[in-house]
Amino acid sequence: MYHDGPARSLKNDPLGCPESRSLLYSHTARVRGRNRAWKRADRDRPPPSESMDTKRPTVPAAEEILGEYFPVLDHGFVSLVDYMGSDEDVERAARASYGFGTRKRSATRGLIRYLRNHRHTTPSEMVEFKFHCAMPMFVARQWIRHRTASVNEYSGRYSLMPLLFYEPELEQLSLQSRSNNQGRGEAARQDVWAEASRRWEALRVDCAATYEWLLGKDVARELARIDLPLSTYTQWYWKIDLHNLLHFLSLRADPHAQWEIRQYANVMAGMVKRVAPISYEAWIDYELCGAAMSRAELEALGKLLGPSGEDSIEVRLEAASLDGAALAALGLNSREIAEFRDKLRPQARPDFDLDLTRMRTADSVAADMERAAPTPE
Amino acid sequence: MYHDGPARSLKNDPLGCPESRSLLYSHTARVRGRNRAWKRADRDRPPPSESMDTKRPTVPAAEEILGEYFPVLDHGFVSLVDYMGSDEDVERAARASYGFGTRKRSATRGLIRYLRNHRHTTPSEMVEFKFHCAMPMFVARQWIRHRTASVNEYSGRYSLMPLLFYEPELEQLSLQSRSNNQGRGEAARQDVWAEASRRWEALRVDCAATYEWLLGKDVARELARIDLPLSTYTQWYWKIDLHNLLHFLSLRADPHAQWEIRQYANVMAGMVKRVAPISYEAWIDYELCGAAMSRAELEALGKLLGPSGEDSIEVRLEAASLDGAALAALGLNSREIAEFRDKLRPQARPDFDLDLTRMRTADSVAADMERAAPTPE
Amino acid sequence: MYHDGPARSLKNDPLGCPESRSLLYSHTARVRGRNRAWKRADRDRPPPSESMDTKRPTVPAAEEILGEYFPVLDHGFVSLVDYMGSDEDVERAARASYGFGTRKRSATRGLIRYLRNHRHTTPSEMVEFKFHCAMPMFVARQWIRHRTASVNEYSGRYSLMPLLFYEPELEQLSLQSRSNNQGRGEAARQDVWAEASRRWEALRVDCAATYEWLLGKDVARELARIDLPLSTYTQWYWKIDLHNLLHFLSLRADPHAQWEIRQYANVMAGMVKRVAPISYEAWIDYELCGAAMSRAELEALGKLLGPSGEDSIEVRLEAASLDGAALAALGLNSREIAEFRDKLRPQARPDFDLDLTRMRTADSVAADMERAAPTPE
Amino acid sequence: MYHDGPARSLKNDPLGCPESRSLLYSHTARVRGRNRAWKRADRDRPPPSESMDTKRPTVPAAEEILGEYFPVLDHGFVSLVDYMGSDEDVERAARASYGFGTRKRSATRGLIRYLRNHRHTTPSEMVEFKFHCAMPMFVARQWIRHRTASVNEYSGRYSLMPLLFYEPELEQLSLQSRSNNQGRGEAARQDVWAEASRRWEALRVDCAATYEWLLGKDVARELARIDLPLSTYTQWYWKIDLHNLLHFLSLRADPHAQWEIRQYANVMAGMVKRVAPISYEAWIDYELCGAAMSRAELEALGKLLGPSGEDSIEVRLEAASLDGAALAALGLNSREIAEFRDKLRPQARPDFDLDLTRMRTADSVAADMERAAPTPE
Repeated sequence: MYHDGPARSLKNDPLGCPESRSLLYSHTARVRGRNRAWKRADRDRPPPSESMDTKRPTVPAAEEILGEYFPVLDHGFVSLVDYMGSDEDVERAARASYGFGTRKRSATRGLIRYLRNHRHTTPSEMVEFKFHCAMPMFVARQWIRHRTASVNEYSGRYSLMPLLFYEPELEQLSLQSRSNNQGRGEAARQDVWAEASRRWEALRVDCAATYEWLLGKDVARELARIDLPLSTYTQWYWKIDLHNLLHFLSLRADPHAQWEIRQYANVMAGMVKRVAPISYEAWIDYELCGAAMSRAELEALGKLLGPSGEDSIEVRLEAASLDGAALAALGLNSREIAEFRDKLRPQARPDFDLDLTRMRTADSVAADMERAAPTPE
Repeated sequence: MYHDGPARSLKNDPLGCPESRSLLYSHTARVRGRNRAWKRADRDRPPPSESMDTKRPTVPAAEEILGEYFPVLDHGFVSLVDYMGSDEDVERAARASYGFGTRKRSATRGLIRYLRNHRHTTPSEMVEFKFHCAMPMFVARQWIRHRTASVNEYSGRYSLMPLLFYEPELEQLSLQSRSNNQGRGEAARQDVWAEASRRWEALRVDCAATYEWLLGKDVARELARIDLPLSTYTQWYWKIDLHNLLHFLSLRADPHAQWEIRQYANVMAGMVKRVAPISYEAWIDYELCGAAMSRAELEALGKLLGPSGEDSIEVRLEAASLDGAALAALGLNSREIAEFRDKLRPQARPDFDLDLTRMRTADSVAADMERAAPTPE
Repeated sequence: MYHDGPARSLKNDPLGCPESRSLLYSHTARVRGRNRAWKRADRDRPPPSESMDTKRPTVPAAEEILGEYFPVLDHGFVSLVDYMGSDEDVERAARASYGFGTRKRSATRGLIRYLRNHRHTTPSEMVEFKFHCAMPMFVARQWIRHRTASVNEYSGRYSLMPLLFYEPELEQLSLQSRSNNQGRGEAARQDVWAEASRRWEALRVDCAATYEWLLGKDVARELARIDLPLSTYTQWYWKIDLHNLLHFLSLRADPHAQWEIRQYANVMAGMVKRVAPISYEAWIDYELCGAAMSRAELEALGKLLGPSGEDSIEVRLEAASLDGAALAALGLNSREIAEFRDKLRPQARPDFDLDLTRMRTADSVAADMERAAPTPE
Repeated sequence: MYHDGPARSLKNDPLGCPESRSLLYSHTARVRGRNRAWKRADRDRPPPSESMDTKRPTVPAAEEILGEYFPVLDHGFVSLVDYMGSDEDVERAARASYGFGTRKRSATRGLIRYLRNHRHTTPSEMVEFKFHCAMPMFVARQWIRHRTASVNEYSGRYSLMPLLFYEPELEQLSLQSRSNNQGRGEAARQDVWAEASRRWEALRVDCAATYEWLLGKDVARELARIDLPLSTYTQWYWKIDLHNLLHFLSLRADPHAQWEIRQYANVMAGMVKRVAPISYEAWIDYELCGAAMSRAELEALGKLLGPSGEDSIEVRLEAASLDGAALAALGLNSREIAEFRDKLRPQARPDFDLDLTRMRTADSVAADMERAAPTPE
């Protein structure tokens, strides 16, 4: 078993693997105990007031989910464990940098939307998020490519890896896409999924058995783990500022991202919505649901449309349409023409509201991980 | 005058320069008003509880100075306006990454010191600081070289620059150092300082007058400012994680740093001491007051000393000393020999305690800045 | 005088200020001498072949300007002193990451344009540029905000600052813009410029005199310089990859950037055009001359236009125009409506070709700097 | 089979996986053909001179290995495919920043060693390296934690993964270390290795079969790969500057790093030695073979030793030794005492010379990868 206890055979290891509970932020417990733990750590300083009053910017909607765990995929999760600042801090930083005049409360939304529209991104670096996440390693490998975050990952060199593996559901087992060179096309047949599932389960039993056998022979953990599959879950703390988080979400909540990492992006977008709702809305309107137009696309638009009057836009009667040849003459290739046409189609506005009924406590998540600890032979 | 009011002549500028008060974090006011401002911003969400309770890690010693302004030099300041996390968060991240076993409260200090000693720096990226600072531009130009922080600087393109200039005191007016190619040596004579002071004051009157004259002619601010001297004060919000802050402090609290920037580093070190006291102490012991020994220095030490018994270190009787020739034979040049000898001399352990009697409120600081606003002719 | 010689009075400074020529890349000299300098440095290794053959990717159009100095403003310059890679290296990295199949020469342009259009930016990090630049300090302060470059700036703590100051020409002395809160509007009257010019010159004489007086009294250079104005020229080496350079150019070649820094961006864009011409053209077409459309703008476009047939775009007859009220109903405010209309107007495609007749040699630039060295009283 | 050819069954995939040869830098071929490929790409510009002359800094010792492949582990490699600058460029940048006076050739080594000794790191950011590397995924996951590099990794979403797996040799199969909580202790028994080897091979046959079966059913590659083990080889282009590379090597050539990643660090250190030999030697002497001493260690040294005379260091007769209790009184715990004693022991100076007899051509490496391409069922 994973935790200290009678079933544990790694007697010769004085440090052992971390008790999962100790890795988690037990906000509930701390609040319940009126900050007991923190007072102990501060024992050489005057005790804090009995209440957890802080002068720092505090957001009730974020506090509501702080330290709660949202399940993702079959064994993963995302939890917002800390945050710093909110929309007002973006505004304040912008007023320092860009001098938007005397602060008027009513103008907060307008200013933040203006910043996002014009890609004035530095003020949104002033808000910070810290997450605790668990994901399959093939997802972790995509995620870690974002270099602007701080990360502390659970280490398979030091600790025993919980034996948790990601298994795609039937509706996720898609065929290689025909239309582009990445991602997924239509769904696989049910019998392919059934056989895939059978093969995955057999493989994982073997991988886990070899891992536990090597641990039982006391082989170094850093070597025992090398044949764990990419579907094995890992976990980390991940800290990032609002600007870089929104950039991450723009890439990872996008349909071109692998479906599995998008599930994580969706949950984190819901958390942004709670910490900095105005910035979130501006991101939806100016980035996620916006589109970049190239010089050739703008030229095409300018042939079909133009400003008129004081504040209107009207179609140009002399050019009621541009066909493929006309668009090609502007420099658009056939893929670009298809993409241009897509940009003009109506598009649903996503809603990343969190489903609070799915929240789990840190203790319950820790218990799951402990149950999945390997048992060295 | 700088703020909105009858004396203001920039009537044609609808946005104007930011009211200084609106740039500052008025933590006191916010608490006094029981979070009124923040509740208004959140008006579409359920109102927060009347108390400012947060489930986030909270450090009483940091709360005590949060949003208070500490003067630096003649017109500068540093204020800690927000923080995220503390020593316990470094520990938690380390346990995730390095798997130091079941968490025992008593081991927090030992773990953090171990991390610092062995340069395991990623866990300390999990703590974040946000400062509001004002400093002369020649200091800002050194400071900004640290690229791992987020910064929003007051913009002279958009806003009027307060006419505040740094004037060195007599004891700071030092001569160019003889012993190295940087920094300062002995103090200048008093008559040199008196004449320097006279010249500085005359220059600044002229620079300010030209700035105000150009503003009066409505010349673009981005051009009007180009002859302000490097001694002019600017200000910014500066956000950085604990790891990178300690690296900054190691460089900028060092005697080789320019004296003026060291005054800022000293105050920020005192703020680290309040937010993360164990990390602070480890930084003092393993970095600021430690020293790197080169291969040649270690070889010299190994000729004079060696391990003995179970846990002792003793001098080698066969080599009671190494003279300059012997040290040179190990590869040390004369500057390195002098530095090596210095490392063996007793060294005072600095104390960066903040002087709370010097704390000023945000309002008082804002009033100073407003009084220094330029008056366009 | 600035360089070693009879006029130099800083006899007591054994290191002195760097001879300007030694800071510059003397590519011409090195080639003329068939790599003499480099052979001396490599004297412990086998001598290089007499020719400067390299197996590294080499771009003739870049070699033509390598180490040549292009004047910017009245005393500034930009020189490309080194580069690594070209378009083919972007392509190769992309094929590794995105697997675009077997490499066909004819497809290089298509692939690079696809990457740029879809913001696949990591492959363009594989090309690197190194510049030597001189600019006024108020420009340097904007420039340094880009944190993704490596920089080594000439240090006023160690070295004497050449007494070179930027003086705006008549056509640059603009008034504060009315339409936005930044930048410049119409030109100032000639008499304002004449008086401004007179004031600048007087100020700089005084600043220079105080600097030289303080140096003559042997005051530490780091203090002597504090009243040099922001118009004083500084210089640095600046190294950055193609992705981050294009991001810099998008911001700094933009009309919203201060006119002075745009002059630098224009020259560097011309250098990119020589090192990586396909990437340059894609940047023009997909970024610099493109535009982001928000969700509301796309919705407006979708009301006026739509895909039709196989590959056409046609206007919707039912909605021949959208007036201000209709656009506002989609969520666009009045500033956004104006900006939307602007995006539909024809736009000139900039041409950043370098003017080779303006090229200067490193030696000639160094001589200018030496003539401007301060003469301590 | 992996490459285009009769055996290939992925007929329906127009793009397919990249031909391995096209991913590699064929420096030899290009030189042999007198730059034929590059001339074609530049066909709209004047043809380059027949020779590959460049005005850029060129290092013969680096050219000798450029584009050659050095094997690491059983199927991995490192190749230096491009570089920018050398020791002289570090020096030039330092002279700009730190103003070390007129450049004297003889002083290059002294200056670079001074910079390294005093941790003046920015000048060494001016030299850049680009590598092509292949390594097992568990190594890649450690490597990617270094965020200051640019990377383009072979993508399992787009391309077929070559079926190459790392298998530890007998002498590498070590037991979990007793003395610390990481890494390896004594070797495993031969029978354990034999059984481990048998299990690994069986597992990999199964993993490969499942991968090929899923590909045969046309399942999206991004899903087909999820049960490949962490021992599977991946590859990437990796570009980094000298400063950050040396920091990487300090951590990854260290005995605390996992043995497998150290094999890569060792080869890259040998490449640094060829590109920037003086910086390499300074890194060995001041970092890799140096040691940091804490405040308590310096205090202990100061009790046993001290400066004497003009340039000597001598033992203090009054304190011939410090035992464990005395060291503990200075604040050293038992682990720190052991480490302190270790620092005083003689240490071998590593030599990272490359073994040129092991060099392989790009074509030969590509052929190996093609042979390992999966054959979908």
